[in-house]
Amino acid sequence: MIDYGKLIQRYKPDSVEQGKIASLVSEVTGKIRRYCSENSIDADPVLVGSVAKGTNIKSGDVDIFVTFSRKYEKREMEDLGVKIGRAVIRDGTEKYAEHPYVTGRLNGYKLDIVPSYRISPGERKVSSVDRTPLHTDFVLKNLTAEMRDQVILLKLFMKHFQIYGSEVRVSGFSGYICELLIWKFENFENVVQMFSRLSGKLVIGNTKRTNLPESPVLIIDPVDDERNAAAAVSVESLSTMKVASKLFVSAHDEEYLDPDPPRQEPVYADRGTAIRIFRMPKPPVVDDIVYPQAVKFRNSLVDLLYSGGFMPLSSEISIEGEVQILIECRDSNSPAIRTREGPPADSDNVLDFIRKYKEIAVRGPYIIGERIYADVRTEPETIELFVHEHLQELSIGKNLAPLKDRITIYNPAGGNARLDVMDRFYSKKIT
Amino acid sequence: MIDYGKLIQRYKPDSVEQGKIASLVSEVTGKIRRYCSENSIDADPVLVGSVAKGTNIKSGDVDIFVTFSRKYEKREMEDLGVKIGRAVIRDGTEKYAEHPYVTGRLNGYKLDIVPSYRISPGERKVSSVDRTPLHTDFVLKNLTAEMRDQVILLKLFMKHFQIYGSEVRVSGFSGYICELLIWKFENFENVVQMFSRLSGKLVIGNTKRTNLPESPVLIIDPVDDERNAAAAVSVESLSTMKVASKLFVSAHDEEYLDPDPPRQEPVYADRGTAIRIFRMPKPPVVDDIVYPQAVKFRNSLVDLLYSGGFMPLSSEISIEGEVQILIECRDSNSPAIRTREGPPADSDNVLDFIRKYKEIAVRGPYIIGERIYADVRTEPETIELFVHEHLQELSIGKNLAPLKDRITIYNPAGGNARLDVMDRFYSKKIT
Repeated sequence: MIDYGKLIQRYKPDSVEQGKIASLVSEVTGKIRRYCSENSIDADPVLVGSVAKGTNIKSGDVDIFVTFSRKYEKREMEDLGVKIGRAVIRDGTEKYAEHPYVTGRLNGYKLDIVPSYRISPGERKVSSVDRTPLHTDFVLKNLTAEMRDQVILLKLFMKHFQIYGSEVRVSGFSGYICELLIWKFENFENVVQMFSRLSGKLVIGNTKRTNLPESPVLIIDPVDDERNAAAAVSVESLSTMKVASKLFVSAHDEEYLDPDPPRQEPVYADRGTAIRIFRMPKPPVVDDIVYPQAVKFRNSLVDLLYSGGFMPLSSEISIEGEVQILIECRDSNSPAIRTREGPPADSDNVLDFIRKYKEIAVRGPYIIGERIYADVRTEPETIELFVHEHLQELSIGKNLAPLKDRITIYNPAGGNARLDVMDRFYSKKIT
Repeated sequence: MIDYGKLIQRYKPDSVEQGKIASLVSEVTGKIRRYCSENSIDADPVLVGSVAKGTNIKSGDVDIFVTFSRKYEKREMEDLGVKIGRAVIRDGTEKYAEHPYVTGRLNGYKLDIVPSYRISPGERKVSSVDRTPLHTDFVLKNLTAEMRDQVILLKLFMKHFQIYGSEVRVSGFSGYICELLIWKFENFENVVQMFSRLSGKLVIGNTKRTNLPESPVLIIDPVDDERNAAAAVSVESLSTMKVASKLFVSAHDEEYLDPDPPRQEPVYADRGTAIRIFRMPKPPVVDDIVYPQAVKFRNSLVDLLYSGGFMPLSSEISIEGEVQILIECRDSNSPAIRTREGPPADSDNVLDFIRKYKEIAVRGPYIIGERIYADVRTEPETIELFVHEHLQELSIGKNLAPLKDRITIYNPAGGNARLDVMDRFYSKKIT
C-alpha cells in the first residue's frame, strides 16, 4: 500500500515554507493596499490560486488578484492593474491573457499580479478572470483540510502523466478541476477508480439547463452553472487520464505519483522514414496564442505534404524558444504520379476540373464517393522543394504568418542538432 | 441541337423487331398457359420489364413472370416455376435471385422466366419480385407514348456513363427509376437539368410517413409507399449522374447518348507504385452475391496492407470470369518501423497492450485521440509474404472463404497478362 500521508508530507509545503509564503503574501498585499490608498484607487488585493485554497504543492506559484470597483472602465482598470503590478515586482514582465498582468519572481517564488473586477456569485461576469476569487471562496467553504490534501495527490498524479494544466499546449486538467473532482468524489482513490471505469465522456453537474458546447469533459462550475469548468480538457488528456487511472488501479505503484519522473533518454532510432523539422522564430505573444497557431501550421503542412504524395505519418510540435514542427513522412520524394483531388460532384467547378485534366491525366477524371479526381504524372520533388514552392499558400495563423519567410527545414538525418521537438517525438510515451 | 427523334428511332425497336418480340412473347406465354393447364397449376404468364412497358431499347431482354396463386407454399411455387421455365427454354440455366428463375436465349432474345405470386396494389408483399407486375401497370397507366420514348433517352444517357442498372456491381439507376424520373419530370432534358443543379441527396415523394433508411437517392415507390425504389443507387452513381448532367447541360453533345461508346485503350503507365492483383476462382453464385463479397475481400486487403505499412492508395474490382482485386500500394516492402494500433482508452485491454509493448516499442505506447498506439521495429516484408502470412485472418465473405487457399497474387510489373481488373483500373474515366 502507498503511504499517502508520507507523500502529502513530501510535496505539501511544510510550516517553514508556509511561513515564507505567508510573509510574502502579507508583504505584497500590504504594498498593493498602500499603493491604492496613496493613489486613491478603489481596489483590493486578493490571494487566489492554490495557495489561497491550501491545495498548493511545494514551491508553487503565488497568484494575487487586484480586484477593482466596477466604476472603472476596462482599459483604465487594466492600466492601473499593470502599474500596481510593476510597483510590487520591480523587474516583472507584462504578459497578456484575458487582461494584461505582471509576472516575476519575489523572495524565490514566482508571483503573478492580475487585475480583475469584484464580482459576487451569480453576478454578471465581466471576464473569466473575475470569477477566480469566487472559486477560492467555493473551495475554502466546501473542501475539508483532508480533501485539500487529496487534491495535492491528484495533482501529483496528473503531473506525472503530463495532463495537469489548462494551458492550450497541455489542454489538461486545471487545479480547479482537481478541486471539483475531490469535492465530488471525496478522495484521490475514488477519482482514479471513477476514471478507470469511465466510458466515453465525463459529465458532472446538471447539464439540462445549459446549452454548453460539446466537450470531452463537462463539469458545471458550481459558482456559474453556465460555464464548463473543464472546457479546456482535450480528448487526448481525458484518454490519458483513463489509461493512467487503469494503470494505477491495477498496480497501485507510488511511481505514478512522482510529479517529475526521470524521462527516458530519447533514442533517435532510424525509422526508415523521412523526418523533417520546420522551424521558425516564436512571435512575442503568450504560449496560449502561439500554440493553436503552431497546430494550424502543422495541420496545413500535413495537408500539403499529403497532397504532394509524401504520405505524412505522424507529427510533433514544440514551442520552447522557437516554433518547431516535426513531420514524419513515408517518403522524401514525391511519387511520379499524383492524384489531384477535384471539387465535389455538387459543384459547378467539376466541369473546369474535367476540362483541365481530361487530356493530361494518366487516369481519370473519375468519381470516388462524392468527389472527382484525376491522376497526373509529375516530376518527383523533394519535401524541401515542394514545401518552399507552396509556402505562400499555407495558412498558419495571424502571428506566425509574418514570419513565413524565416521558416527553415531541418533534416535530422543530415545534422547533429538535438531539437526539443525531436526529444518530444522520440520519447513520446504514456509512462 | 440534338435530334432526339432520330436518336429514339435509332435505339427503339422498329416495327419489324416489335413484331418479332410480340410473336416470341405470344409463343412463350402460350406454352406457359398450356403447361399450367395440362398440369393443373393455378398460375398465369405476365409480360413484365421494359418490353411490357414500352420503354425497351433494341435487342433488350424479355422478362416473363409466372404469377402463382397464393395457395402454393413458397417452395412449391419455386419448384413449379423452375419446371415451367425449363419446359419453355430447353437449354436454359437456373439462377437464383430472390427466387430461383430460368434464363436462356430464344429466337435471338435473352429471356428470363421468373416465378412470383399474384398481388394487387397495397396487398401485403411476399417478395420484391411480386411487386414487378404492379410496376408494369403503373408505367402503362401513367406514362404517355412520348414519355416512354424519353425513358429510352434517359437509359441511353445512363448507359453511356455506366450507371444504368441496379445490379450490386453497378449500383446504378434501374429501368423503373428512369420511368419514375420521367413520370415526375416529363422529359429527358428536365431530368438532366434537375440533376445538374442537384445539391446533396435526391428525394422524391412524401417521405414523412415512412421510416426508410438513409440513402443517397430516395424515390418513394408509387405502388408501395414504404419502399425506396432507388435504395440500390450508390453515392458514386449519384455523383456520376450529377457530373454527367452538368457535362450534358453545358455541351448538349450527342456523344453522351451513345450507350456503348468506344472505350479508350487502357495505357499501362508505370505509376511508380506497387500494384498487385489478388485472384481467385469465382464461386457458382449470382454476381449480386459475389460482388459484395469481393468488396469485403478488397476492404479486408486494404485494411491488412494498411496495417502492414504498405500504404494502399487505390483499388479496383472485377468479377468477370474470376474474382480479381487490384490494389495499388505506395511501397512493395513494409517499413522497418510499424505503428501498432491498440485498443481505445476506454477498454481494459489497454493494460495488456501497454504490458506487451512497453519494453519492445521503439516509441510509445502513446495516446492519440481516444486510442493507444506503439511503434515497433519489424523485419521488412513483401506484400506477397505479408498477405500470405495473414490470409487466414482475412474476412472475405461466405462464398469466397472456402476458396481462400486458391488465392494467387499477380504482379503486373513482372508479367504480360492483361487482366480485366487492370483494364478497369487503368481506363477509369467518367467520360
